[in-house]
Amino acid sequence: VTPGVRPEPVEGPSVAVVVGAGLIGASVGCALSAAGYAVHLQDRQVSHALVAAGLGAGSVEPAEPDRVDLVVVAVPPEAIAGVVAGSLEAYPRAAVTDVGSVKAGVLDALWRRAVDLTRYVGSHPMAGSQHSGPLTARADLFTDRTWVVTPHRRSDPVAVAQVEAAVRACGARPVVMDVDDHDAAVARVSHVPHLLSVLMAGHLTTVPENDLMLAGTGLRDVTRIAASDPRMWEQIVGANSAAVLTELRGVQDQLDLLVKAVEAMPSAGELRAQLERGVAGTRKIPGKHGAAAVAYSQVVVAIPDEPGALARLFGEVEEAGVNVEDIAIEHDPVREVGYLALSVRPEASDDLVARMVAHGWSVV
Amino acid sequence: VTPGVRPEPVEGPSVAVVVGAGLIGASVGCALSAAGYAVHLQDRQVSHALVAAGLGAGSVEPAEPDRVDLVVVAVPPEAIAGVVAGSLEAYPRAAVTDVGSVKAGVLDALWRRAVDLTRYVGSHPMAGSQHSGPLTARADLFTDRTWVVTPHRRSDPVAVAQVEAAVRACGARPVVMDVDDHDAAVARVSHVPHLLSVLMAGHLTTVPENDLMLAGTGLRDVTRIAASDPRMWEQIVGANSAAVLTELRGVQDQLDLLVKAVEAMPSAGELRAQLERGVAGTRKIPGKHGAAAVAYSQVVVAIPDEPGALARLFGEVEEAGVNVEDIAIEHDPVREVGYLALSVRPEASDDLVARMVAHGWSVV
Repeated sequence: VTPGVRPEPVEGPSVAVVVGAGLIGASVGCALSAAGYAVHLQDRQVSHALVAAGLGAGSVEPAEPDRVDLVVVAVPPEAIAGVVAGSLEAYPRAAVTDVGSVKAGVLDALWRRAVDLTRYVGSHPMAGSQHSGPLTARADLFTDRTWVVTPHRRSDPVAVAQVEAAVRACGARPVVMDVDDHDAAVARVSHVPHLLSVLMAGHLTTVPENDLMLAGTGLRDVTRIAASDPRMWEQIVGANSAAVLTELRGVQDQLDLLVKAVEAMPSAGELRAQLERGVAGTRKIPGKHGAAAVAYSQVVVAIPDEPGALARLFGEVEEAGVNVEDIAIEHDPVREVGYLALSVRPEASDDLVARMVAHGWSVV
Repeated sequence: VTPGVRPEPVEGPSVAVVVGAGLIGASVGCALSAAGYAVHLQDRQVSHALVAAGLGAGSVEPAEPDRVDLVVVAVPPEAIAGVVAGSLEAYPRAAVTDVGSVKAGVLDALWRRAVDLTRYVGSHPMAGSQHSGPLTARADLFTDRTWVVTPHRRSDPVAVAQVEAAVRACGARPVVMDVDDHDAAVARVSHVPHLLSVLMAGHLTTVPENDLMLAGTGLRDVTRIAASDPRMWEQIVGANSAAVLTELRGVQDQLDLLVKAVEAMPSAGELRAQLERGVAGTRKIPGKHGAAAVAYSQVVVAIPDEPGALARLFGEVEEAGVNVEDIAIEHDPVREVGYLALSVRPEASDDLVARMVAHGWSVV
């Protein structure tokens, strides 16, 4: 292969090779197949490739190397650099991406191998689950998720465009980031949260069995990701240990403050501050679709004094085809009456008011 | 009211008063109403009682004190003891329970008031959400949840039975526990998990806004409960601070070990041990219904080498009416072929094998 020189594309559907038929690889295969790509699956464990194929992720037949447009490397972190280098060699036309959780180490390893990296563009879909293996693969795993694309200084723009097109074909939103910025960000929003989940779940090993009968959804939510494969997470944290350590030390300092705050009870000022800091943190997480905040209009309705009336009210709002973004109760302490403030998009507000009045509701 | 002497019950449906129309109180009202109780709602904020009533949680008309069979006190932690004492006075026949998250402090405060506590039986439903207020109330909030009932040494068995009956009417499983055992258990499975969620969410306040674009479901799961009302949690942790502190110090020690483990990377032994401890902890949490583990039979099928075949296989298993509890991929490295091991209840195994063979699947 002559560096920088790429054979012409061939007619027909885009051809993709997915290397690694675990949850992510098999889901990529399902999503790309659904989007019209001709997908070929590879896995060191033939049974994994067969299961993925059986779920519609593609074919286990080998691809013709010259016809491959895209290779998606979805192998464990420690194997990524080797498989990327091998794929650049084996598929002379293909853009090659990997879906590993940490990007700088792979890129460094590839530079050291002195391979031509123009067709390599790293990436990282922000999706997964506590399950691993192809059995839980789903074509919609990436729908509406962020999928970071991390070109390097030698990446060919055509290859970047091919990777971004595949990301969109999987239903995800491509977001271009620098490799180091990406690694710092995932330490903060993924790796440290994972370790805190592990910390809490690990503490449960010291808890009497009977107490776990009282476990509610809160405990399950907090510990869910701690059930993930330790071998994989050992590699992820190992590949990003400097960034993880910085964040983890910050959390350690805050836990010391939290312990002091509980020691100081019933004087509650410091604990209250920590609890409020937590609420502020949850508000920083954008909505599922990363949508920008919209200024809503409020439609204020007197609360009816009648059983079942609110269910009817909500039913009528729904019939009006208006999406209520938020509802709050407002209280008039002097008159001892209450109101519901329905937050709706500004353009829907007038229609909704007219409709509510027409149906006999008391709109303020 | 003469201690220990209770007026005769009156004919008709059971009459319940729910004091406090927040998420829990309003949901109790909805569940008891659906189960045939005549529910009367009270709240210092009339608008909350009206909203709860509008959602079907009961009536805002006052109850006739002599007709009330059950009072459910669902007010903020600091107000519970006062409202319980007042309810025992106001409703001479009623069993009185509260739904507070910490039980010993309330009971101590009631003993100090020297009221007759025979009709008081504390309780604690293991359900809730990060939302508060009646708007998110649901009749099925308690379905299949554990609801701890904490009688004290003077509790009248009739009152205990009335509270247990109400718990069952709400669809929950009553579990009787000692007050102090309960408080230690909730420190472990609820209050400390809450504080760790707060710790993680609070750390996000130090993270660049842009990084949060990469937030996935893992971060959302870990931080979800940190969005809960700080005023309420300040009271909960304050009421259980000694038990919380014991656990939190254990977590602090483990976090120190975790930081050391990440410092020691790439030597990964210690981190691996912590990650595996986390997995072990998640396995201690019983399933949603707290069901005992069952020994399953395995039906082993050769993985078909055909796109879409697995979807058809799962479809046929479903048609057979057999519940597959677990699926694993098994690999024969010598013959390079794979098998699916379907775990099913022993009694379903023979039928399933017969059916699979009849449909042409290769069962091992």
